[in-house]
Amino acid sequence: MSKLRDHKQGDFSREEVTLANRNSGIALEMLRYDVTPVGMHYLLTHFDYPYLEAESWKLEIGGLIDKAVELSLDDLRALPQVSQTVTLECAGNGRANIDNRYQSMPWQHEAVSTAKWTGVRLSDVLQGVAIDATAIELAFYGADHGEDAHGEHDYGRSLSVAHAMQPEVMLVYEMNDLPLLPQHGAPVRMIVPGWYGMASVKWLTRIEAIDQPFDGPQQVGTYIYRDKPEDPGTFVQEIRVKSLMIPPGFPDFYSRRRFAEAGQIELMGRAWSGNGVGIASVEVGIDGTWREATLTAPECRYAWTRWHCSWDATPGEHVLQCRARDANGQVQPLEPRWDVQGFGNNGVQTVRVTVR
Amino acid sequence: MSKLRDHKQGDFSREEVTLANRNSGIALEMLRYDVTPVGMHYLLTHFDYPYLEAESWKLEIGGLIDKAVELSLDDLRALPQVSQTVTLECAGNGRANIDNRYQSMPWQHEAVSTAKWTGVRLSDVLQGVAIDATAIELAFYGADHGEDAHGEHDYGRSLSVAHAMQPEVMLVYEMNDLPLLPQHGAPVRMIVPGWYGMASVKWLTRIEAIDQPFDGPQQVGTYIYRDKPEDPGTFVQEIRVKSLMIPPGFPDFYSRRRFAEAGQIELMGRAWSGNGVGIASVEVGIDGTWREATLTAPECRYAWTRWHCSWDATPGEHVLQCRARDANGQVQPLEPRWDVQGFGNNGVQTVRVTVR
Repeated sequence: MSKLRDHKQGDFSREEVTLANRNSGIALEMLRYDVTPVGMHYLLTHFDYPYLEAESWKLEIGGLIDKAVELSLDDLRALPQVSQTVTLECAGNGRANIDNRYQSMPWQHEAVSTAKWTGVRLSDVLQGVAIDATAIELAFYGADHGEDAHGEHDYGRSLSVAHAMQPEVMLVYEMNDLPLLPQHGAPVRMIVPGWYGMASVKWLTRIEAIDQPFDGPQQVGTYIYRDKPEDPGTFVQEIRVKSLMIPPGFPDFYSRRRFAEAGQIELMGRAWSGNGVGIASVEVGIDGTWREATLTAPECRYAWTRWHCSWDATPGEHVLQCRARDANGQVQPLEPRWDVQGFGNNGVQTVRVTVR
Repeated sequence: MSKLRDHKQGDFSREEVTLANRNSGIALEMLRYDVTPVGMHYLLTHFDYPYLEAESWKLEIGGLIDKAVELSLDDLRALPQVSQTVTLECAGNGRANIDNRYQSMPWQHEAVSTAKWTGVRLSDVLQGVAIDATAIELAFYGADHGEDAHGEHDYGRSLSVAHAMQPEVMLVYEMNDLPLLPQHGAPVRMIVPGWYGMASVKWLTRIEAIDQPFDGPQQVGTYIYRDKPEDPGTFVQEIRVKSLMIPPGFPDFYSRRRFAEAGQIELMGRAWSGNGVGIASVEVGIDGTWREATLTAPECRYAWTRWHCSWDATPGEHVLQCRARDANGQVQPLEPRWDVQGFGNNGVQTVRVTVR
């Protein structure tokens, strides 16, 4: 029996709305900021926000290591401090734009944000730990606990030992130069740049070295790309190339229909790709005609790229789109990608504007 | 012709979900904090978040005054600084719990929060302004601009001159000891303690003294209690008495159904009432039997009251509720209140828990 939920077309269930009310995304006009303002960063949390006190917090490191280790926040602070500006996106972003959508958090476009994260390299933490040669993965557990179709569990994810030792993988205790907020994983969370947000375990409490692939529900149950419910599927990992635009003009409150005045309008937005090779181009589509946008490269490898493009808006109805290509040649599809659970949808955003 | 939208039962429209994704509420477990953490404070914004620079921001004061005034942020900072911890609630909170709900932002319980606001008394700002004796109201305009059924407008609200001069009414530039965030009205917003959030105009740019009741769309169109669409109705103003509970135990991801272990469980939550007279009692209902909770009075008159109550949870299905009464004798109704647009619903929250 499949442990997946049903799909739905048209109107949304109360459960979907409850999730939309609990979780939060950015408003697209916030794409103007290189670093998303504190508190506007998107949030997707499976269970309740746990409450951990920084003073008594401990990180246990166990499993296939020479001797179990317990680290305090002061122990982490004693390691070399590093900062990195990183764009994170929820793997389910865009799910509600898929016609026959999976019933879960109904993200449209808003589950992507960029923050400056400060903490330590995970590799520096692990340097003091003698990991057994038989260990192939590290499992990371958060304090968030609950139940889903795969059973009751603490939120947990794994990385290969090799990936965990990469210099960009961090344990962080600050966000945008402030102590990490309770809702973002305080006192300490992971940041795994380039991967969808599910890898960046919040409220981190335990690391375990294991000699088998990690089989936790969030690793082998939830975050799997599948064409059909019965497929074994493949792991959701790296963030796919994507771009978004700030909708120009102003909105109608309820329909969010856009209105703008005729004349020169500077369109702008952001583009990103998890592989870290950089964005090669962003094309802006105006009523189906595509033109190149101007890019401003980010200062950090895993942060989004700013793009802008001038539009001579004439009275009438217009359809605006944007499409990014990364330096590996990956490009966004025009239509949403099918995935059973709606993961990795990097289909092109469409904005309709009435110019008057 | 009524300018109101239609009602809806059952499933939710895409427009409702789009609003739920844009706006954001607290997660109920965040009720543990006396002051809601930065960034978790609820947000309801009608139009786009405007971008205002603190350096160039000006507050114009005009209309029926001796001489138009223009104030900078430095001018405000030169006035006596005051801080106040205030609970704000969106007038539409609870709308989605009304059976035949108005189509708008589908809040369930999450649009209430408490922050420490720092700035100046509005009365101190107005002391330097010679308001004409014919002026009866002050209209306050924000930089947020858009359209709704009542037409295109800048967000605007008014207060009587007498109310505006009350010592609790503030213009603020800090929230929780940090500069006001862009999404919360930076650089300067109003705080009108005791009234639903619509009165606390964000991104404040203009104050106008007028000798007629203000007729802006957000004053005479939107925020009106009506029994029937054609009713002239009454103004939405003071926050009604209400309470909420942190759902005990842990959730299922999708259904948000709650599970808890048998034994002593400390139930806790918050209660508030806009009139500032204080909460007299909170009763906790366990399977229909009501008992008194213990209250901890807030330090500030307009901040919520903490309550707690011990529950000996036995295996089985349980229904938990809480009901507050303020010192004026106002008490929450057991069922949602009917209002055409779903304003002021202070009906009792119900939490279902499976104890095992």
